[in-house]
Amino acid sequence: MPGLLDPLFRGGAVDAVFTDTATLQGMLDFEAALARAEAGLGIIPLGADTAIAAHCRADRFDLDALAHAAAKAGNTAIPLVKALTARVAAADPDASRFVHWGATSQDIMDTGLVLQIRQALPLMDKDLDTLEGYLARLAATHAGTPLAARTWMQQALPTTFGLKAAGWMAAVGRARRALATAGQDCLVLQFGGAAGTLAALGDRGLDVAAALALDLDLALPDLPWHGHRDRLVALGAALGLVAGVLGKMARDLSLLMQTEVGEAFEPAEAGKGGSSAMPHKRNPVACAVALSAAARVPPLVATLFAALPQEQERGLGGWHAEWETLPEIFRLVGGSLRVMADAMAGLEVDAGRMRANLDITRGLLMSESVVMALGQALGRGPAHSLVEKASRQAVAEGRGLGDVLATLPEVTAHLSPEQLAAALDPSSYLGMAPEFVARALAARESSRDA
Amino acid sequence: MPGLLDPLFRGGAVDAVFTDTATLQGMLDFEAALARAEAGLGIIPLGADTAIAAHCRADRFDLDALAHAAAKAGNTAIPLVKALTARVAAADPDASRFVHWGATSQDIMDTGLVLQIRQALPLMDKDLDTLEGYLARLAATHAGTPLAARTWMQQALPTTFGLKAAGWMAAVGRARRALATAGQDCLVLQFGGAAGTLAALGDRGLDVAAALALDLDLALPDLPWHGHRDRLVALGAALGLVAGVLGKMARDLSLLMQTEVGEAFEPAEAGKGGSSAMPHKRNPVACAVALSAAARVPPLVATLFAALPQEQERGLGGWHAEWETLPEIFRLVGGSLRVMADAMAGLEVDAGRMRANLDITRGLLMSESVVMALGQALGRGPAHSLVEKASRQAVAEGRGLGDVLATLPEVTAHLSPEQLAAALDPSSYLGMAPEFVARALAARESSRDA
Amino acid sequence: MPGLLDPLFRGGAVDAVFTDTATLQGMLDFEAALARAEAGLGIIPLGADTAIAAHCRADRFDLDALAHAAAKAGNTAIPLVKALTARVAAADPDASRFVHWGATSQDIMDTGLVLQIRQALPLMDKDLDTLEGYLARLAATHAGTPLAARTWMQQALPTTFGLKAAGWMAAVGRARRALATAGQDCLVLQFGGAAGTLAALGDRGLDVAAALALDLDLALPDLPWHGHRDRLVALGAALGLVAGVLGKMARDLSLLMQTEVGEAFEPAEAGKGGSSAMPHKRNPVACAVALSAAARVPPLVATLFAALPQEQERGLGGWHAEWETLPEIFRLVGGSLRVMADAMAGLEVDAGRMRANLDITRGLLMSESVVMALGQALGRGPAHSLVEKASRQAVAEGRGLGDVLATLPEVTAHLSPEQLAAALDPSSYLGMAPEFVARALAARESSRDA
Amino acid sequence: MPGLLDPLFRGGAVDAVFTDTATLQGMLDFEAALARAEAGLGIIPLGADTAIAAHCRADRFDLDALAHAAAKAGNTAIPLVKALTARVAAADPDASRFVHWGATSQDIMDTGLVLQIRQALPLMDKDLDTLEGYLARLAATHAGTPLAARTWMQQALPTTFGLKAAGWMAAVGRARRALATAGQDCLVLQFGGAAGTLAALGDRGLDVAAALALDLDLALPDLPWHGHRDRLVALGAALGLVAGVLGKMARDLSLLMQTEVGEAFEPAEAGKGGSSAMPHKRNPVACAVALSAAARVPPLVATLFAALPQEQERGLGGWHAEWETLPEIFRLVGGSLRVMADAMAGLEVDAGRMRANLDITRGLLMSESVVMALGQALGRGPAHSLVEKASRQAVAEGRGLGDVLATLPEVTAHLSPEQLAAALDPSSYLGMAPEFVARALAARESSRDA
Repeated sequence: MPGLLDPLFRGGAVDAVFTDTATLQGMLDFEAALARAEAGLGIIPLGADTAIAAHCRADRFDLDALAHAAAKAGNTAIPLVKALTARVAAADPDASRFVHWGATSQDIMDTGLVLQIRQALPLMDKDLDTLEGYLARLAATHAGTPLAARTWMQQALPTTFGLKAAGWMAAVGRARRALATAGQDCLVLQFGGAAGTLAALGDRGLDVAAALALDLDLALPDLPWHGHRDRLVALGAALGLVAGVLGKMARDLSLLMQTEVGEAFEPAEAGKGGSSAMPHKRNPVACAVALSAAARVPPLVATLFAALPQEQERGLGGWHAEWETLPEIFRLVGGSLRVMADAMAGLEVDAGRMRANLDITRGLLMSESVVMALGQALGRGPAHSLVEKASRQAVAEGRGLGDVLATLPEVTAHLSPEQLAAALDPSSYLGMAPEFVARALAARESSRDA
Repeated sequence: MPGLLDPLFRGGAVDAVFTDTATLQGMLDFEAALARAEAGLGIIPLGADTAIAAHCRADRFDLDALAHAAAKAGNTAIPLVKALTARVAAADPDASRFVHWGATSQDIMDTGLVLQIRQALPLMDKDLDTLEGYLARLAATHAGTPLAARTWMQQALPTTFGLKAAGWMAAVGRARRALATAGQDCLVLQFGGAAGTLAALGDRGLDVAAALALDLDLALPDLPWHGHRDRLVALGAALGLVAGVLGKMARDLSLLMQTEVGEAFEPAEAGKGGSSAMPHKRNPVACAVALSAAARVPPLVATLFAALPQEQERGLGGWHAEWETLPEIFRLVGGSLRVMADAMAGLEVDAGRMRANLDITRGLLMSESVVMALGQALGRGPAHSLVEKASRQAVAEGRGLGDVLATLPEVTAHLSPEQLAAALDPSSYLGMAPEFVARALAARESSRDA
Repeated sequence: MPGLLDPLFRGGAVDAVFTDTATLQGMLDFEAALARAEAGLGIIPLGADTAIAAHCRADRFDLDALAHAAAKAGNTAIPLVKALTARVAAADPDASRFVHWGATSQDIMDTGLVLQIRQALPLMDKDLDTLEGYLARLAATHAGTPLAARTWMQQALPTTFGLKAAGWMAAVGRARRALATAGQDCLVLQFGGAAGTLAALGDRGLDVAAALALDLDLALPDLPWHGHRDRLVALGAALGLVAGVLGKMARDLSLLMQTEVGEAFEPAEAGKGGSSAMPHKRNPVACAVALSAAARVPPLVATLFAALPQEQERGLGGWHAEWETLPEIFRLVGGSLRVMADAMAGLEVDAGRMRANLDITRGLLMSESVVMALGQALGRGPAHSLVEKASRQAVAEGRGLGDVLATLPEVTAHLSPEQLAAALDPSSYLGMAPEFVARALAARESSRDA
Repeated sequence: MPGLLDPLFRGGAVDAVFTDTATLQGMLDFEAALARAEAGLGIIPLGADTAIAAHCRADRFDLDALAHAAAKAGNTAIPLVKALTARVAAADPDASRFVHWGATSQDIMDTGLVLQIRQALPLMDKDLDTLEGYLARLAATHAGTPLAARTWMQQALPTTFGLKAAGWMAAVGRARRALATAGQDCLVLQFGGAAGTLAALGDRGLDVAAALALDLDLALPDLPWHGHRDRLVALGAALGLVAGVLGKMARDLSLLMQTEVGEAFEPAEAGKGGSSAMPHKRNPVACAVALSAAARVPPLVATLFAALPQEQERGLGGWHAEWETLPEIFRLVGGSLRVMADAMAGLEVDAGRMRANLDITRGLLMSESVVMALGQALGRGPAHSLVEKASRQAVAEGRGLGDVLATLPEVTAHLSPEQLAAALDPSSYLGMAPEFVARALAARESSRDA
């Protein structure tokens, strides 16, 4: 059953992968594969494996009982193995002796987690790809749509909304690739037995490990990694990048949605973002979710990093700190991804308001353009000083910059009225914005072909 | 239904306060009190309040439906008010017009949270007091029980186990008082309406606020605090202190429980801390829980601090980042508190092993004692050098420090064999340890009398 | 020599307290006082104390040599004691034997830090009080100046700028009191000797501790706290509150300074906040500093919390993690405080723009006011629906809400044109804003009287 | 001048790369290259580039004046460009007009940082490679040296010290590769001008960007990344992995160095790790440094992640939060790397003590071995129960496990005295430890060949 806020903050496709039942199933998949590997090698009797595997179904276990037993045992694996053994024993007492043969709790918990991660990765990747697609569409459509670039939260110069979208898209693409790489690196078997030596399997340890890895289609690591958690932490960090990249998009959108700006909006939907007291408001609900994820995930990632120095062969407290943290990161990032994909799928862009807002400064925004136009003749420094002075005058007298400039002989000596008007027109000062968009779109295409 | 790991990592008394149902009830308690306050002042019709209050029972609402509606609305309050209004309307359409009169979503969510906090505080306090009691008993019993003090994870000099326990106790006491203070500071009404001005109530806003605060027995703040979250953050920080203080205790205990140290143990219990592969092990499960809480809580506290700069009258993302974070902190700290209280209630102390471990260094541990004994005659520096040299010799030759010292004329000239033996006896070099214990116990007594 | 960014990010009054030289002086003050206390009790020879104290001047030590020696020794205290002893020995060999008598490195490092904290507290308090004063002035001046309240970064309803300032002021006041309390709690002596038992002083340990505390005017704790760092962590948390409260103010101000909002500004100053390429921009430099502090400080505070579980009598790594962290927090918060105090001292408030921005929604902002005006007659629900519908119509047809409402018989039946105009006038719908301001100012006054 | 604690906590090779002077030089290298690129394309006069480049030497600038000017301007670039322009103007007024042509502050600050990163990467890589080499040597030498594996800080089963070292080595190798990859990804030009469009360069923006990237030997990104900081954050995360991997090594070593364990030690060195009061102690100074870095770095990494949602084209506060944070991470990790490399270069391994400690449990440690030996006959469950019972008996009666087992008919029926002795011999129960070591060493060799 979801918590009260799960549909708001989570709700991504990965939710299904990080349920309690899925966690148990991951562990049970390990147990079944272990039995198969050992039976195949003649280490446990043929037939024991099928007897064991028959009971490796998470929905047959009593979650509540396991949860309470885990509190005493200190982890979930111990009571699960006990419960699995009992179930097997009821049907086949001989086979039950070979449940979990040669493995330790952390083997099944870690490998189970790896199996969950493997399920989660394509779900995240698909959603990220979808989002990238929406952003590519926005970038292409608005490659030349002017709006004010804001730096330090102040209008700076014109840019285009397509360039903004292309920037989001490129960042999503990078985060997607980082996640794929870090995820792939995690797909390794954990199997070391109680001390990481597989001693309980005599001289067959590596044989079993290799067969088990093959069965589960996981890489066989050079050595067990019970106390070395860097792969999982790197995965957490990659998820943190996704959270941050989505958060940046949400930050931008929430600023654009402000009443005083009004340039782009999350799609309207009945009952979405309404205020209980202000019927006219359309709250940026998706942005709130993505921003809260971008705020909550970094400290969770830090928890993983800080837990790296785990004691000796298997640690105390550090390992335990990971258990709920990594799945929670997945779920929060998945939820953020869902809402931002929805927001970008139906984003409302008000190009007219974008253009209108470029006039708020009455030409001051275009001062660099004028500096550059004058700079060829006067040099950048003098041109800068001149325009700075004109700008101050415009502000002081409540006039437009163009009006002031048109009265200055230093300006009229070098720029015709047409040239001055062109220098003051935002759409004439977009620089490489469309080219940058084209480059980013081409890069996306070529990375998809690869 | 608890999650798979809830009984392990949480399980404290406060769990019952931070359920989804309790969250709804907190909000409904606000709605009922608001209606009473407004009816009492003649702002809404008499009778509307009882009609409304009759439906303010969390168990009557469909949690799952609210959860999904909250995902659209952006918070839980909006669908809850809608559902409450519908329920009231079914029985008394007139009264239903006055549900939530003049309030905003955050008013009921924040005040509801405050009401939950008020329930949680005495539960935490009671458990902390109980733990302090266990620690006081350990401190008193072992005020003079010698064991090696460890600094930098190396044996340093003798101290007593009672002093260690008194240190834990005093820290728990300070954290308890910090929590009480921070908690008390949170017990303020949130009531400001949509913009924090209570404008919807005309000139009666403060009257309603005062009556509402009185009804709920909460303090009336000078102004609404929708965007000012410092009280809650301070509470989170106080909980972080508790987590850290318990974590310190767990760190110490886990070090004492090491196979090579073996001086103190979590109480044994059937099925607790057993290893699936090593029947002889007794894993420090309580320590693992408390250490993981001490690792997980600080980043969660940082989330709260980082969310302080919330935008204008009500923020975007920052507020949302709090919703699950503060309750999770409560629950993790509550769980840590439970396991450490249990551990200290039944702590097994092996005073014999403590004494035996004091001999591991074959006298080197007592070198300061000898330096001090010799220092009166030789000065601290020369005495230090002499003992340092003797220590090196003892190590190099595999002898005890006493043996070496007994052969040095600079020593025998100033210390008789009996004096040397005394200087090498750990129990003769406990300094103020018993006095410090007595001071700490007395301070606890006097703070309890206060 | 300051780092390249120190004048930007730090620059607060506390900087002078957290220099390397001041750190050494704190430790030397401890050594001098220790010698005095011990000489006064006859534990070391009379005269040795003055001989020692004469050399306890930080400016006489070679910082660079100490720094490199500390790298080997593992802390600063060891080489400092060595260097001090050498200096004393050059003048008075006998006295030099009694340098650091009975103390351990952490005693002088911790107590030295406490002495620095004591110097820092009034500096911070003074700056906070000054800032509160500026904010009080803004609150009083603008108690009735209307501007749009923003929730979820959307215009919500009118409020007043004075209420916003009063909210800042009240939060600063709470943070100030939290800092004073946490700071006061830190002013305790650290003195335990190598193992926290003061064993090296025989039965005089507590006598020396008491005399030393008296000499340094610090509280005598019940027991040494080498491994119990909660007081310092609570101080760090209080500083984190200050950082967050200042960050909230900066967040608000940066939003108000946006080109599209333009309601309040950091004071202009030659060369401040200019852009290299855009002569018209006035970047919110103070906000950038305060926001970066509000982002950097919480993780540093988390470092302190996470370091609480220090091993046994003195820890490994956790203690070391504190050394630079707490002073850095002080300095970052001090710098943030400086810039925000300057910003608020000269804040430019554009009340005209505030009023003008209230018209951006063409009346939609006032919908709650109309709902409330109509609600008395129609009930809140129907009134809400009616106004919501009118709002949608106004948006769809590009008309003002007032225009639309004036055409609706359900409205005109209950509200006269004058009543409708009043319901749509922002300044008539400020609720309790002025009263809240008055309450907050009165509370500040009474807390100052106390 | 280094701070008082720099030689202790930093002191890595990268320190030289992250000084204030090096920061300025990075920015000046950008300015020189920009002038060359623009002169080469005929955008600024030929000759202006050499006139500008001649002054791009950091040691000629007044750091202190720049620092104070930066506090007003809000960043270092603005006063640096001003100062550079003045210097060029003094020699060549015409050329001075073309300083910084078309660039914005963040272009030179970001690219300057990228150039510093490029210098830092091989330094870190070399030190990591050296450390890996030391660890490889330890792994090879001790591939078969038995010691107790510890799980949950309890002795579990035998393993070998070589396997422990191989685990460290493999983790260092992974972190090294992660750092190389993340570092390489950062080596991209930042060049976008005031709004990220290069508008000031007319239609030549991309030409200049390409020429500039070529000159600096950096990749040309698809679009400017002023507001998209994921590459730098990923680099910070990779550094966090290094810190954590080193911290894990330090955690292990500090546990091994405990007085009660005594199995491995940081190399002794005159004056290193001595205690002021306890001449016999050898404090694990390197471990303290590496552990404190592992505690301090994760929150700093979280600062970077949390700063990802930067506002629009260039952010406020988030960007500023990076400035000192990433260099500090580099320096802390560099310092940790230095001390751990030194520690592993001269690590003292006490194989005798390792072997002796395996006997502490008087055979209980070997219970799994006995379970496995008996399990073939009895099944794992019954064997487990039997040995568990025998273990309890051994503990209760203070006897060795072997003694107890030898008296049990269920045991003697299946195991001869020789078989029982073999099952109790740690060196016979090392499992795949040597094979795992060999695999890890071979993987290192093959990755070096690649």
